[in-house]
Amino acid sequence: MMVIMQEGATEEQIAHVVARIEEIGAAAHISKGERVTLIGAIGDREELTGLPLEACPGVDRVVAILKPYKLVSREFRPADTVITVRDTKVGGGHFALIAGPCSVETPDQVLTAARAVKAAGGTMLRGGAFKPRTSPYAFQGLGVDGLKMMAAARDETGLPIVTEVMDPRDLDIVAGYADVLQVGARNMQNFLLLAELGKLNKPVLLKRGPSATIEELLMAAEYIVKEGNRDVILCERGIRTFETATRNTLDIAAVPIIKLASHLPILVDPSHATGRLDLVLPLSLSAVAAGADGVIVETHPNPEHALCDGPQSLPTEAFAEYAARVLELVAWTGKTTV
Amino acid sequence: MMVIMQEGATEEQIAHVVARIEEIGAAAHISKGERVTLIGAIGDREELTGLPLEACPGVDRVVAILKPYKLVSREFRPADTVITVRDTKVGGGHFALIAGPCSVETPDQVLTAARAVKAAGGTMLRGGAFKPRTSPYAFQGLGVDGLKMMAAARDETGLPIVTEVMDPRDLDIVAGYADVLQVGARNMQNFLLLAELGKLNKPVLLKRGPSATIEELLMAAEYIVKEGNRDVILCERGIRTFETATRNTLDIAAVPIIKLASHLPILVDPSHATGRLDLVLPLSLSAVAAGADGVIVETHPNPEHALCDGPQSLPTEAFAEYAARVLELVAWTGKTTV
Amino acid sequence: MMVIMQEGATEEQIAHVVARIEEIGAAAHISKGERVTLIGAIGDREELTGLPLEACPGVDRVVAILKPYKLVSREFRPADTVITVRDTKVGGGHFALIAGPCSVETPDQVLTAARAVKAAGGTMLRGGAFKPRTSPYAFQGLGVDGLKMMAAARDETGLPIVTEVMDPRDLDIVAGYADVLQVGARNMQNFLLLAELGKLNKPVLLKRGPSATIEELLMAAEYIVKEGNRDVILCERGIRTFETATRNTLDIAAVPIIKLASHLPILVDPSHATGRLDLVLPLSLSAVAAGADGVIVETHPNPEHALCDGPQSLPTEAFAEYAARVLELVAWTGKTTV
Amino acid sequence: MMVIMQEGATEEQIAHVVARIEEIGAAAHISKGERVTLIGAIGDREELTGLPLEACPGVDRVVAILKPYKLVSREFRPADTVITVRDTKVGGGHFALIAGPCSVETPDQVLTAARAVKAAGGTMLRGGAFKPRTSPYAFQGLGVDGLKMMAAARDETGLPIVTEVMDPRDLDIVAGYADVLQVGARNMQNFLLLAELGKLNKPVLLKRGPSATIEELLMAAEYIVKEGNRDVILCERGIRTFETATRNTLDIAAVPIIKLASHLPILVDPSHATGRLDLVLPLSLSAVAAGADGVIVETHPNPEHALCDGPQSLPTEAFAEYAARVLELVAWTGKTTV
Repeated sequence: MMVIMQEGATEEQIAHVVARIEEIGAAAHISKGERVTLIGAIGDREELTGLPLEACPGVDRVVAILKPYKLVSREFRPADTVITVRDTKVGGGHFALIAGPCSVETPDQVLTAARAVKAAGGTMLRGGAFKPRTSPYAFQGLGVDGLKMMAAARDETGLPIVTEVMDPRDLDIVAGYADVLQVGARNMQNFLLLAELGKLNKPVLLKRGPSATIEELLMAAEYIVKEGNRDVILCERGIRTFETATRNTLDIAAVPIIKLASHLPILVDPSHATGRLDLVLPLSLSAVAAGADGVIVETHPNPEHALCDGPQSLPTEAFAEYAARVLELVAWTGKTTV
Repeated sequence: MMVIMQEGATEEQIAHVVARIEEIGAAAHISKGERVTLIGAIGDREELTGLPLEACPGVDRVVAILKPYKLVSREFRPADTVITVRDTKVGGGHFALIAGPCSVETPDQVLTAARAVKAAGGTMLRGGAFKPRTSPYAFQGLGVDGLKMMAAARDETGLPIVTEVMDPRDLDIVAGYADVLQVGARNMQNFLLLAELGKLNKPVLLKRGPSATIEELLMAAEYIVKEGNRDVILCERGIRTFETATRNTLDIAAVPIIKLASHLPILVDPSHATGRLDLVLPLSLSAVAAGADGVIVETHPNPEHALCDGPQSLPTEAFAEYAARVLELVAWTGKTTV
Repeated sequence: MMVIMQEGATEEQIAHVVARIEEIGAAAHISKGERVTLIGAIGDREELTGLPLEACPGVDRVVAILKPYKLVSREFRPADTVITVRDTKVGGGHFALIAGPCSVETPDQVLTAARAVKAAGGTMLRGGAFKPRTSPYAFQGLGVDGLKMMAAARDETGLPIVTEVMDPRDLDIVAGYADVLQVGARNMQNFLLLAELGKLNKPVLLKRGPSATIEELLMAAEYIVKEGNRDVILCERGIRTFETATRNTLDIAAVPIIKLASHLPILVDPSHATGRLDLVLPLSLSAVAAGADGVIVETHPNPEHALCDGPQSLPTEAFAEYAARVLELVAWTGKTTV
Repeated sequence: MMVIMQEGATEEQIAHVVARIEEIGAAAHISKGERVTLIGAIGDREELTGLPLEACPGVDRVVAILKPYKLVSREFRPADTVITVRDTKVGGGHFALIAGPCSVETPDQVLTAARAVKAAGGTMLRGGAFKPRTSPYAFQGLGVDGLKMMAAARDETGLPIVTEVMDPRDLDIVAGYADVLQVGARNMQNFLLLAELGKLNKPVLLKRGPSATIEELLMAAEYIVKEGNRDVILCERGIRTFETATRNTLDIAAVPIIKLASHLPILVDPSHATGRLDLVLPLSLSAVAAGADGVIVETHPNPEHALCDGPQSLPTEAFAEYAARVLELVAWTGKTTV
């Protein structure tokens, strides 16, 4: 940690900052420039992070030197994490093609979608049973009945299932059905939920919040891994910006940045990132080319009658053509879905 | 709801949209321009909102005509909501000056802060016992012990207490101590928590999420009010933008916009909005002048040793001077803290 | 144009809006809902755009129905615009690989870069002679001397040259050397410059401003085309968001959106979008996969000694490898650089 | 300047960075932590800024220690700059109330507005003769005829006039009429224009760009002051964010931040910041309370018929009431309009 003093900071103020650093057992190194004095602090990261040095008189800024996450960093574990979900894998050259309806609505709807996903070479089935909705008047999901429909579709197709858990109280029941537990974008900083998921022995799909930085996404993942669960799959799904042509702005650079900074797999969700069906294919291809370890998209047998997010769902009958193009590019990058 | 068809949409596509609208019992009005056809849909708001018309072929955009919230709107209830918290009031000319430490740390710390707040004319005491922290390595709060310290400070000073609840599982215990239950910015769209709070008979302080629009804040409030709890106090605390001089960007326009759109009281939190102590006074004054129904700020007997957010906390010894200036401007606006 | 009246708007207010619309020779259609009245206005687009109906009492919002640009739209000209620059082409299946140093510094530097670009299959040479710099203390470019060095490099390699013009007063001189005139991101809404460029008979490369929407980029292009110059090449180079891991956030969705909305070619500049060398290859591939008509990147014989933007420049010796990978993916998409 | 090396940077890489720093005559101080090495560079600010150390192998980040502006900083000149415009002053306790129409349209319109501004206690008249418009189809201003109408209004009322200059080629003619030359938000980083304005002996009103940081605004002001013109008035007019309830988001915190960082006066433009008439008064009051040195607002005798920005213009007949409330608060803050 580096403390940058204000121009004109007094000797007393400098001595005070040094004392605060030494108080917690860290070492302070003073470096005086012509106009500004710097104080480097070397010691335990967590202790230093907790020290509110900006509150000391004469301090201009405090610059962190070490990254605020550790276990999820590439430095900590140089090799890619490969996560096994039933008989499929994600990360380290294994590409996940995850698709399914936004909301589970009927057994038929889920099965139709699941068969199409399976037939086209998809590797997992997604579907929401507990739905967070911005409006209290919108459809909130089928709950446990939805989970059962997902499980039935898995039984027939063999596809592992990915579904969201929103409430720590539902964790056991959702984990009883799901193969991968999804944390929605709005819950990325629901730290209680993250800590509970860290105690499970089941992969977690953690979506980036719409106003979260990449660093904050990695810190949220750290919450889970710190509790013991190493199987975290990250997902870029768009951030909130001034652009209104899309629901969110897909931050495609997050993919290579996360591959450099972390060993965890990173997926892209082009459906939620943009909210527009006509962008799903080009952005899926763009994600593959950028190095993503998978994509997660919405497909529905009848998007016009979908209870949720119909406008961005691929019609199931068009899924095969979509998947073929995506998988052709996956092969070009040297990755595999096996 | 107004459906704007693409240029070149076919008669068949237009007829299909009309059919979808009529299917749910709403009326459709077609209006053909030289290049573009519009279809107005008149019917039940919730039914129409659930209809994914953007997914229909030939549709360019769907424009909502009615606002997505109802119970919290000024049209629904023209008079300001006034919320009583013990023997103090918020809204409709009653100004709340809420202050206290970010985190509750010791009985002494809370009491010292509470006495200073009371002496300076503050109307409520804030303090965190359950703390959401971006880093898993940061101090997470004292929990129930913290609540007890807050309650003891209330017993002595008479100040009602405001504290955050994060987990639906903690609701009963927190509600057992708190006078106002705070929903933190990260939980603004934790709809499960909102729905539970709606079933209580206790005021809720709902903070705007850093990437939430004003409309989404009002929809989150609607979640609570819809369940029966009308006592919602809104709070602007900064949104996330590209500017890095402050932690967040205080959206001061949210204050008059919310006063126009809703009957609920709206507070401003200048401490969290900016993360900078030197901005707390000017932004508090700016909030008062813009018409806010209160401010909520951090004060700590010893900010340099605070376990949380020290850099932005007013030293308790400076609180009286701060409060005097703020309350002088409150008086100028014609509001009162009684 | 659609006028949405406030709930409770009076008959008089409605009549007044209708009168204002009819005053300019347009037709007004009233549509009364249970709570809200809509007034559709049909007439000349430019006349209607100029009518400040939001200022009329009782008006809630005005919704534009037609797009604010015309000549650059796909509806106006369904086929892709193909722009010829000397013996190379951009758009309609022709991919442009444009590279070169940020700033022109010495004849040797430009020549070395130009030879590497040519050898690796690049199609144009970029280089700045007039540089806009955020700091008044930074290197401002060589001016005309720089243009001459670019021209010499073109003479040897045959690569057409792309360079920025910032000042309408320099237009003639820059146009005397350049094959493509670049409008920098900060000048995207310098409407005087755009109008002057519209009178030339030379292709323009128009970069998106960091806070411009896609719609505003298309309106800026309209300024040029309206004056008679149809040869506009658009360029996505990142928008300003809260994310600090990259200098800007590359809005990759802009590529397919612009392909749908306009017939003009769209390039991507991954160097300026992120400011990070380690992201240039993955984001170039991502641009190609998303459907971009070209990329424009920085390459420098000695990035560490570059006078501008060294950190994001590919070393010239690494350019061949970069280009090979990009061009392999271009071929996969079915595009060609010939 | 502080260079933060990557974890695992080699001795050779460290030596190389040190050599680059020493090459330009600066001093390098190495400080080795357990995991990361820091290299402090002390020397000439401009030389150091120009050194692209991020491009060196093994470098993680470069942190600037000194601020990138100098002449406009509070450290350089501790006392407030007071700018005299004819017989009125701005800065250092002098508050400017500047009002007038967005566009100059007719002699009558300008005169009516000017009389109302004068009568209500306004200190300057604003009005646009050269207008930058996002759409090429919108009204572009009256040019020199507009300037003459402004001058006539000044002759009658004595109010100094503020008007925008967009093109360096128009500088002489606009400066021949105007008392204060305004640089519009879109031109904040038109560095050629800034440099020319720096050579004049006339106050400049510099508006913050919608995607410019506060630091960038101060650097733009530095461009002007560096050329010799010290009379720069800054203006906050909203930044671009995801919130759509207002045209831009007024960054009210910019006011106290600029008062702390710079000696230059800072105004607020609530009309352009929000585009909404109903917010002009509350946001003007909020600006005064935050410490602004003035406000600049739009007033028009007939907003509904305004050729530009009618919806946000105060009707001239309402201006007196508006001004009375604003000036009452100005007096409360201890500032004066004399």
